[in-house]
Amino acid sequence: VAEKRTSRQPEILLEIGPGRGPLHVQIERALRDALRDGRIASGAAVPSTRVMARQLGVSRGVLVEAYEQLIAEGYLVTRPGSRTRVADGVRPLPRQAPVAAFPSVRFDFRPGLPDVTHFPRDAWSRASRRVLRELAAAQLSYGDARGAFELRAALVEYLGRARGVLGVPEAVVICTGFAQALGVIARALYRRGVRRFAVEDPGHPDQRRILAGAGLAVVGVPVDDQGLRVDRLERVAAQAVLVTPAHQFPSGIVLSAERRRDLLAWAASHAAIVVEDDYDAEYRYDRKPVGALQGLAPERVVYAGSASKLLAPALRLGWLVVPPAWAEVTAQIKKDADLGSSTLEQLVYADFLQTGELDRHLRRMRTIYRSRRDALLRALTRHCPRWTPSGVAAGLHLVAGLPAGRDDAELARAALGRSVRVYPISDYRFKTRGPAGLVLGYAGLTEREISEAVARLAGIGG
Amino acid sequence: VAEKRTSRQPEILLEIGPGRGPLHVQIERALRDALRDGRIASGAAVPSTRVMARQLGVSRGVLVEAYEQLIAEGYLVTRPGSRTRVADGVRPLPRQAPVAAFPSVRFDFRPGLPDVTHFPRDAWSRASRRVLRELAAAQLSYGDARGAFELRAALVEYLGRARGVLGVPEAVVICTGFAQALGVIARALYRRGVRRFAVEDPGHPDQRRILAGAGLAVVGVPVDDQGLRVDRLERVAAQAVLVTPAHQFPSGIVLSAERRRDLLAWAASHAAIVVEDDYDAEYRYDRKPVGALQGLAPERVVYAGSASKLLAPALRLGWLVVPPAWAEVTAQIKKDADLGSSTLEQLVYADFLQTGELDRHLRRMRTIYRSRRDALLRALTRHCPRWTPSGVAAGLHLVAGLPAGRDDAELARAALGRSVRVYPISDYRFKTRGPAGLVLGYAGLTEREISEAVARLAGIGG
Repeated sequence: VAEKRTSRQPEILLEIGPGRGPLHVQIERALRDALRDGRIASGAAVPSTRVMARQLGVSRGVLVEAYEQLIAEGYLVTRPGSRTRVADGVRPLPRQAPVAAFPSVRFDFRPGLPDVTHFPRDAWSRASRRVLRELAAAQLSYGDARGAFELRAALVEYLGRARGVLGVPEAVVICTGFAQALGVIARALYRRGVRRFAVEDPGHPDQRRILAGAGLAVVGVPVDDQGLRVDRLERVAAQAVLVTPAHQFPSGIVLSAERRRDLLAWAASHAAIVVEDDYDAEYRYDRKPVGALQGLAPERVVYAGSASKLLAPALRLGWLVVPPAWAEVTAQIKKDADLGSSTLEQLVYADFLQTGELDRHLRRMRTIYRSRRDALLRALTRHCPRWTPSGVAAGLHLVAGLPAGRDDAELARAALGRSVRVYPISDYRFKTRGPAGLVLGYAGLTEREISEAVARLAGIGG
Repeated sequence: VAEKRTSRQPEILLEIGPGRGPLHVQIERALRDALRDGRIASGAAVPSTRVMARQLGVSRGVLVEAYEQLIAEGYLVTRPGSRTRVADGVRPLPRQAPVAAFPSVRFDFRPGLPDVTHFPRDAWSRASRRVLRELAAAQLSYGDARGAFELRAALVEYLGRARGVLGVPEAVVICTGFAQALGVIARALYRRGVRRFAVEDPGHPDQRRILAGAGLAVVGVPVDDQGLRVDRLERVAAQAVLVTPAHQFPSGIVLSAERRRDLLAWAASHAAIVVEDDYDAEYRYDRKPVGALQGLAPERVVYAGSASKLLAPALRLGWLVVPPAWAEVTAQIKKDADLGSSTLEQLVYADFLQTGELDRHLRRMRTIYRSRRDALLRALTRHCPRWTPSGVAAGLHLVAGLPAGRDDAELARAALGRSVRVYPISDYRFKTRGPAGLVLGYAGLTEREISEAVARLAGIGG
């Protein structure tokens, strides 16, 4: 144990010793701590440098240096002809009460989450190393607020191939996840005069909040078994609409060919913008995915996607493919928000697209998710035969329709008692009512877990 | 060369061949392309599947599958009793005109940029590998919008040690660079009723734009040789103020001890908030840095910093240390913006802090930047002896005051003619006038480049 020298006074006790850095720095730190935790009160005089130096057994110069630093920082004040004192207002910081932890359950059917345990860590690590080795130094500085050109170009190629999206890198804006992407396009629309924005009902409440936060009046349009009721858009006087054509969230319905046509006709005749949230379209199990709506009308449709369901939400990578006429205003809004998202991860993701790592990962995950979906369907048939699954062809969740008279919120509460979390579709409804159902995300549970969780649900009235 | 089969018709030419994926996918893609580039017009009938199959020499089933896909996607429409046609409104996407490149110069004294050629790529790569190996799978999912706990805790430790900041991880919010951090705290202040926000004049115009974008009325307060004129805050009825105490931007002045005290007294008596932009305080050459103002009044001061000048702007890592009473509203605003910044880079930066890599990097860079500052001072003395440098003790830039009567904007324009970019301080002024000067960022130029660039400036009137 190092020898310690202490200065004991009515007001003050400092500990300093060898191996803890320069003496004056140690003294400054110790004094700061003593001031902050209230051991020396505001306004109180501190010992003179001479007294303090003698007590600590150090040279007076060390104390003078420490006091000068604390005076410059404002902790101590000195006035001609009077003693150095503790400045007014130096006060300890209260600790914040710890936040109550979210109650954890054994089985969580939370929709919209991929199985992150399969995240390709080694491949990501290798790609990171490649990127760090090869990037130009200029790419480490401030860049284009729209994002790294490499990623914008790679996305145009990938989305063209996998989703039928028609874009140019100049009109792609990389964002921090879909959440920011939606906020950015909402603000761009607002800036160009859009005030009434339609959303699907049911839909994601967070998205309604993001749109409202951009100043937009959010109006709901019901969804039926063909998807969005396009005929209602005129009635609500919408100037833009957010849709999930490939797999409506949360109902799972695929927008029918007729409705796709009607939607684009509405957009064309009203000079309106369609925002296409293509959140899980890469996962389709029984047939090829329906291509993105955007490819049909790239001048009317904003395409939005993210890496959250393809790889991991923690990457916070999302993107907008906007009509060229919207590229400038959208880029400006993104620039005002944060000058652009992190470059390194963009370059790593571009590498993932270019080297086919993403395709490999998706092939692997599709097989896993299909098995889990099948396990969920089997378990429902066995344990909850009166529930009717829908929206099963794609994505990472399905909806289990409940028999007439059942209350989905009540059932969800009862399920919590058995340590199973399910998501009542009523929580996603905006203005309309509709049949009761449970949104069941199956991507994060193993087949065995799915089977046991559904068996537990049976016990409360499946 | 692979054998190609083509279908030639008045309207259509498709190329398909082996080795390009399943036939029906090839046909879909080729048809989509033909529709989009206008080779087949909207409303035109497409050949029947029978005719098309015969022409391409493939089975009719393949064509049926391809057409069905394009009907589901909305490219083609079919009505009972009539031929399949191209949907209305399928139109090619115009290329956007390329953006004019920023005119590049040989020597750029842009302030606020570190020398990214020294970015520790290997160390960052090693830290990334460590993080990817060790992180819990749950960290790849959605996380706390405030950021990874590991980074918040590491920052509290580092900022306490290096900057005298007093914080708790619960009240730290990680953002996408300082730009987003300022926008987030501005919105938090607005939500709690702040409407008039004071900034230093001169100061950064981008920051004024960010504050105004949050709905705040931005008022300027002049800076003199002791820093912010605190006595003016009352006159402008400010409810909050943004300051750069360690090295005022762009003047380089250090806020005096008296002004620090006055500023905190003003904040206390007006229940106001001080936002401290500590953008380059780690770089101080002639004495120890003055500790952050925040440590004196952690309940009144929001501390804001970023990795942009410490490591690289491309990381887009910034942070806010807010008073505990402000933690919740600030976290909510960050959550609404994007649900949180990218986790992996946060963890890598936390690793950098914990393993001392950042300290090592800063020690190396301080030496380099000090030499560059000295080279700039020598060159100014030699070539422009009538210019008066100030704000030289810290940071990555200084200000060269011009002799009376010289116009800084005019001089900057003339310098461009010699391929030297300098930054007139008048560009940073908001409402006040003041002496002419050039803001010279020296971090990104070598000593030899600095010397040559200043020699060129001499030629236009140094």
